[in-house]
Amino acid sequence: MVGIAGMPEVRLGDDLAALLVDALGSSGLDDRDIIVITQKVVSKAEGRIRAAAEKEAAVRAESKRVLRRTRGGMFISETHHGFVCANAGVDESNVEEGAVVLLPMDADASARKIRARLRHLTGRDVAIIISDTFGRAWRLGQTDVAIGVAGMDAFIDYRGSLDEQGRELHATRIAAVDELAGAAELVMGKARGICAALIRGAPVTFGRGSASQLVRTPEEDLFR
Amino acid sequence: MVGIAGMPEVRLGDDLAALLVDALGSSGLDDRDIIVITQKVVSKAEGRIRAAAEKEAAVRAESKRVLRRTRGGMFISETHHGFVCANAGVDESNVEEGAVVLLPMDADASARKIRARLRHLTGRDVAIIISDTFGRAWRLGQTDVAIGVAGMDAFIDYRGSLDEQGRELHATRIAAVDELAGAAELVMGKARGICAALIRGAPVTFGRGSASQLVRTPEEDLFR
Repeated sequence: MVGIAGMPEVRLGDDLAALLVDALGSSGLDDRDIIVITQKVVSKAEGRIRAAAEKEAAVRAESKRVLRRTRGGMFISETHHGFVCANAGVDESNVEEGAVVLLPMDADASARKIRARLRHLTGRDVAIIISDTFGRAWRLGQTDVAIGVAGMDAFIDYRGSLDEQGRELHATRIAAVDELAGAAELVMGKARGICAALIRGAPVTFGRGSASQLVRTPEEDLFR
Repeated sequence: MVGIAGMPEVRLGDDLAALLVDALGSSGLDDRDIIVITQKVVSKAEGRIRAAAEKEAAVRAESKRVLRRTRGGMFISETHHGFVCANAGVDESNVEEGAVVLLPMDADASARKIRARLRHLTGRDVAIIISDTFGRAWRLGQTDVAIGVAGMDAFIDYRGSLDEQGRELHATRIAAVDELAGAAELVMGKARGICAALIRGAPVTFGRGSASQLVRTPEEDLFR
């Protein structure tokens, strides 16, 4: 796994797939590579930007419901996608002064678009994960998780598999795309301007998954 | 990052550090390597095993409090360590017939012990992460997280760092050990009998962290 250095500052309308191909240079892409790209640049390319003065209105508009408001004034929201995160993903870090960035409208669709464009440009069949940094219930610290996926399964599904003793593993469905997003965070960092990572050889299934499959609906969730 | 193949079935009293050194063979260890090892083998070496017939009593004994009971009869518990997980970590997969495995009594202490023993055997200063597979609120699927840490910081702390625009990043403290545990899960798998992974070159800080630092107390947690 390596960070993809050399991406320029991304602006509205930029062709992210072309920028990735340029940044990768001669090392290029192989079939079954996975590219993790941060939400921030996808949102910038899609123009999902508001004036900082409209931040609270944007947080409310991006929230399907507000679960809690912290003493520090932060909202814990469920977004229209069904993700639960701080301020419905509206964030002002790594964006120009006076602006805030929203999550992509449909990050699975954004991922599919980047994947299709990469196939057009390179002939390679890769998977795309769009990542963002979310907090968790129960555990301190944030981790990067997948908010958009294309070209691979979201899960590694062990339900029905046998353990070393030949007994069925129950209820084990690993959120592989979240584990990959988290690992990619470590090679990108937060302040180094690296917004994408390349993962080769991951033992995942290259199917038709999406990040929307990761959404635990309020009805399935014991903690809402 | 590679899975460490060739570990034997672990039994009570086994010297895990010696088994790791044998399995690594001539490739050996470098200073600042990170070894991720699954909770299951640490618990087995420490004799944290009960009869399957005592499972429900073990779950209750391992729980500081029970947060919820699912329709399927699973407990969501807070353990005495402060971790929130299914059945207080008591689990019967990958263990001999008729037995269940508990979490280590103090997995940070277990990690420190393995680290000290590896230093004694190899002269190398490595970090240890003991991992387990936990579910999450809000998101489907499980990921591996750190329940024991030695020789490295649990977090990468960006609070006070500047973003690309020179503005302070706020409230960003990445749970690096959880991201590493998740990534290691992918190279170990659940049914392949690989119980440890070696990570080289991770951009983390090799300090005096612990997994207990990741515990969000009920008072700090908006969702309990």
